[in-house]
Amino acid sequence: MRTIKLTIEYDGTNYCGWQVQHSRKKSVQGALQEALAGILQEKVLLKGSGRTDAGVHARGQVAHCATSSLIPVANLQRALNAVLPESISIVRAQEAPADFHSRFQASSKIYRYTILNRPYPPALGRQQVYHYAGALDNAAMARAAACLRGRHDFKAFQSSGGRLETIRTVKKISVAKRGPFLYIDIEADGFLYNMVRIVVGTLIEVGRGRYGPGHMRTILRSRDRKYAGPTAPARGLCLMRVRYR
Amino acid sequence: MRTIKLTIEYDGTNYCGWQVQHSRKKSVQGALQEALAGILQEKVLLKGSGRTDAGVHARGQVAHCATSSLIPVANLQRALNAVLPESISIVRAQEAPADFHSRFQASSKIYRYTILNRPYPPALGRQQVYHYAGALDNAAMARAAACLRGRHDFKAFQSSGGRLETIRTVKKISVAKRGPFLYIDIEADGFLYNMVRIVVGTLIEVGRGRYGPGHMRTILRSRDRKYAGPTAPARGLCLMRVRYR
Repeated sequence: MRTIKLTIEYDGTNYCGWQVQHSRKKSVQGALQEALAGILQEKVLLKGSGRTDAGVHARGQVAHCATSSLIPVANLQRALNAVLPESISIVRAQEAPADFHSRFQASSKIYRYTILNRPYPPALGRQQVYHYAGALDNAAMARAAACLRGRHDFKAFQSSGGRLETIRTVKKISVAKRGPFLYIDIEADGFLYNMVRIVVGTLIEVGRGRYGPGHMRTILRSRDRKYAGPTAPARGLCLMRVRYR
Repeated sequence: MRTIKLTIEYDGTNYCGWQVQHSRKKSVQGALQEALAGILQEKVLLKGSGRTDAGVHARGQVAHCATSSLIPVANLQRALNAVLPESISIVRAQEAPADFHSRFQASSKIYRYTILNRPYPPALGRQQVYHYAGALDNAAMARAAACLRGRHDFKAFQSSGGRLETIRTVKKISVAKRGPFLYIDIEADGFLYNMVRIVVGTLIEVGRGRYGPGHMRTILRSRDRKYAGPTAPARGLCLMRVRYR
């Protein structure tokens, strides 16, 4: 048996999310497993680095599977891209060590959240941004974001039904403005359920002046979801990269 | 009666094009006229700066209409953006002189064609780019594009059924690479039917080495569509701006 590592870009708009679910909508994992089974002529279990919710996108999701097929990885990539729906694309297909695990061996993940901050709504690319029409104080948002850097208990930034172990290390976080776009990039050793979207929802509250930037520390200390801001919409979120040691 | 000038962004993917047609798909013009009629409480004829084909996008299409309504333009913009489908957005609504005409008074238009040049296909933003996987010589494409600058007879770059008067002035044309994207920007005083898409299809033939850059002059001189390259797909094309004197 070989272990294959896949790097995947997808448009999450019309999926129920990464994970196979009992849903009318298809999952990205399900669509990939179906394509792999057709090409490899065997049943395949594809394990991802983590779930993404309905409407969340990826430019660099990583997943792995075992196969007895001898197909060269370049051919596998080409064959997958030929049969997959247009909304899923294989960025890379690689041989991986037999014990490679896309989730357990990930050292960090990088997410980007994109806010389109202008008066009129987006027609082009509207499924990949969250449109916010009001004024945002980007400098205050950047100061607030900096409070999250480092090892903290992020319980206040997790939706109910998430993990019990809520300490994570945010390695990098930045708020960058380019034209009407505001990019919030976060790298952490792991993310709680809805963590990025709640962080972004809270940063928007700071940007519109509802909280001062230093309030982030108070929210962290509260360890209580109700002190953080709302969960920002899924469509602005994209899993950019999964890092391995 | 007042004359209103609208600047419009749209995602052309699910439309039959700008112009109202007898088609199962809606037109952008039709969707806008419907929204305007609902808000202004009168029948409205909206005239665009020119047609765009099915699948072609716009960031700055301009159109005008006459109305007896007294609604302030800021309210009109807000009301339109509230009722229009997500795929159409009003960038600006302005009062215009009574004799303003979006088509006859346009001094130039700027189109952008986007090629995504990388081995694997795009999942995100796939409706706004033409994916070309093979190698492209960007410098040769830029040299070829430069041959089109100025006043020429562009008959060879027009699909059948277009205008009889085929002399146009290309004011600016550039080929710029940014990451995996290749942007072809063209400004001209007017465009023939499918002109940008045929120019791009021909530049791709140059990029892949089928024609030398100087062959552009031979094609221009031929005044014969069959010497130019294929018509590049609609999805990569976007009307960026319409200029007025």
